[in-house]
Amino acid sequence: MSTLDIATAQLDLPAVRSRVDAVLAAFLDGKARAAAVDGHPAVVTEFLRNFLFAGGKRLRPLLCVIGWHAAGGHGMPAPTLQVAASLEMFHAFALVHDDIMDNSATRRGRPTVHRAFADRHRAGRSAAAADRLGGSAAILIGDVALVWSDELLHTAGLRPGRLADVLTVVDAMRTEVMYGQCLDLLATGRPTASTAHALAIVRCKTAKYTVERPLHIGAALAGAGPAFRALLSRYALPLGDAFQLRDDLLGVYGNPAVTGKSRLDDLRDGKHTTLVALALERADRDQRRALHALLGNPDLDESGAGRIRDLLAETGAHAAVERLIQSRCEQAEQALDHEAFPPAALGALRELARGAALRTA
Amino acid sequence: MSTLDIATAQLDLPAVRSRVDAVLAAFLDGKARAAAVDGHPAVVTEFLRNFLFAGGKRLRPLLCVIGWHAAGGHGMPAPTLQVAASLEMFHAFALVHDDIMDNSATRRGRPTVHRAFADRHRAGRSAAAADRLGGSAAILIGDVALVWSDELLHTAGLRPGRLADVLTVVDAMRTEVMYGQCLDLLATGRPTASTAHALAIVRCKTAKYTVERPLHIGAALAGAGPAFRALLSRYALPLGDAFQLRDDLLGVYGNPAVTGKSRLDDLRDGKHTTLVALALERADRDQRRALHALLGNPDLDESGAGRIRDLLAETGAHAAVERLIQSRCEQAEQALDHEAFPPAALGALRELARGAALRTA
Repeated sequence: MSTLDIATAQLDLPAVRSRVDAVLAAFLDGKARAAAVDGHPAVVTEFLRNFLFAGGKRLRPLLCVIGWHAAGGHGMPAPTLQVAASLEMFHAFALVHDDIMDNSATRRGRPTVHRAFADRHRAGRSAAAADRLGGSAAILIGDVALVWSDELLHTAGLRPGRLADVLTVVDAMRTEVMYGQCLDLLATGRPTASTAHALAIVRCKTAKYTVERPLHIGAALAGAGPAFRALLSRYALPLGDAFQLRDDLLGVYGNPAVTGKSRLDDLRDGKHTTLVALALERADRDQRRALHALLGNPDLDESGAGRIRDLLAETGAHAAVERLIQSRCEQAEQALDHEAFPPAALGALRELARGAALRTA
Repeated sequence: MSTLDIATAQLDLPAVRSRVDAVLAAFLDGKARAAAVDGHPAVVTEFLRNFLFAGGKRLRPLLCVIGWHAAGGHGMPAPTLQVAASLEMFHAFALVHDDIMDNSATRRGRPTVHRAFADRHRAGRSAAAADRLGGSAAILIGDVALVWSDELLHTAGLRPGRLADVLTVVDAMRTEVMYGQCLDLLATGRPTASTAHALAIVRCKTAKYTVERPLHIGAALAGAGPAFRALLSRYALPLGDAFQLRDDLLGVYGNPAVTGKSRLDDLRDGKHTTLVALALERADRDQRRALHALLGNPDLDESGAGRIRDLLAETGAHAAVERLIQSRCEQAEQALDHEAFPPAALGALRELARGAALRTA
């Protein structure tokens, strides 16, 4: 229980992270042992372990534990930690599949799962055959992460009624994030000046999935109902927007050595981000023509990306997104002023709100 | 309850099928309505509905209901039907992803999901971009089916202790089939003479997933424990082997107008089936060289496939697989002679055993 068993203390977020990691490591160790006994390939647990422990902010597990404290839970009981860990396993599924869909080469500073798997199996295969094998294996490894995120939930040791409440929120979260990904996919490659559409994707794909639902799940673990969850949403949704808007900026301006991912992928894919929508909305005819010619070009190089960055500055889109992030974070912090969450939860929620605005990775 | 409420009657399998389909249709209708309200894309429910109702034997839901009757369940209560339906939704996930991995063009006589999605979005896109979009959308649509198979389970209305028992078997099934797919994937493109390895893939990928676990899940719904499930396995595993061995033959010899899928895909992919392993084992040097040259060639045409079929006949591999199917089905039927399953379940189990041996689709 260490630093977390007194609800009035400041929540020790690094301690939560390492406890969640311990649950994930123990789960994967068990799966690796079972695979060895059953003659199943070791490669699945190996790749998942490498992926999970290459990095990651553990934001969803942290928010789950914070939600638990916000709703009056105490300490870090094993069922809460295991549900928190299941959210990270689900996120591994989402990222592995996302990287296939975005054809990303790196994640967390390492080759993505589909790329790493292909690289390992190039000997005796054509480049196309190895790439296809890598993509197929990554689909499967992502599927396994999703299935195992379920198993972590089912075996968390929640009492039955509580499990049913939690599953209701989990089911909602999963459907939302899938639809968000779908909206994103359909808009990719054909960005428009619709900021409203870009923000709707953000809301669905990130704000609810990354911030709101993990808090709700933690609160449901502590027995909170829909009314309490609605209070959390007033903080969570603007903060989640800010989080994705920062991600959009990092996808174009971030330092790959810090973010662990390329800063060309989003531009090459022609992602319909709020940043791009604002630029297209504010652009004059020549600027708009230049943006449409550059965005979504799969062969875009650093010089083309530099030209896009210039246009994002000239149109004021970059600054506008910074202002949006600022105002969303303030909105999130203000929502906290009106609530009587326990001090430990409140402190952590404020800390996260500031971190989301300022983060570099 | 119609024809199924008396446990001693013959089980009306077509009635089970239509009841399961009604559950799936109602669930998807609800999801489509919710998507319309929430501004989510309609395309997900549309594609899943088209996929689910283009055909399919509903074998796993049938076996689930039969398992329920075998373990003393009566009638077709709503929770049993909904769990049965969840297995079909899970299967939709597995097939949609399988078709991406196998790069299959048709399934159930229609374009596969990735192909249909790509075809709909070709306008204004390069062929490569449309194909990539189709693949990404199919990954997502498969993911949604998996997530919704869970939701069907969670909301089936089982009492909590029963749900926990069922989830244990479901979790085991999911892990097994994922590993089976992984074994299959790793062996594809490099078939060997190892019949043992081919049969291990069959056991993991199909026998347990398609026959054993659905029966176990149905039995768990009726409160049966591990000892009873072991009795069912004595029937289920050989029958499941026979089912996949027949599938392997249909993949090479089947009539595409009846099976709804290509009879070149497995050969072009170089699938490591028992049929191929037996042929390589029995081949002389020239035959082996010819098989290795033809199998796994992505451009294989009907004439090359004809040459492979000749080699499968000349080596006696085709006849050997027919004998394996025959003996596995007999083994399954004999297992039934020793058990005191209720007559309705027994009749259905015998019917399925005969059907698995003789089916053409």
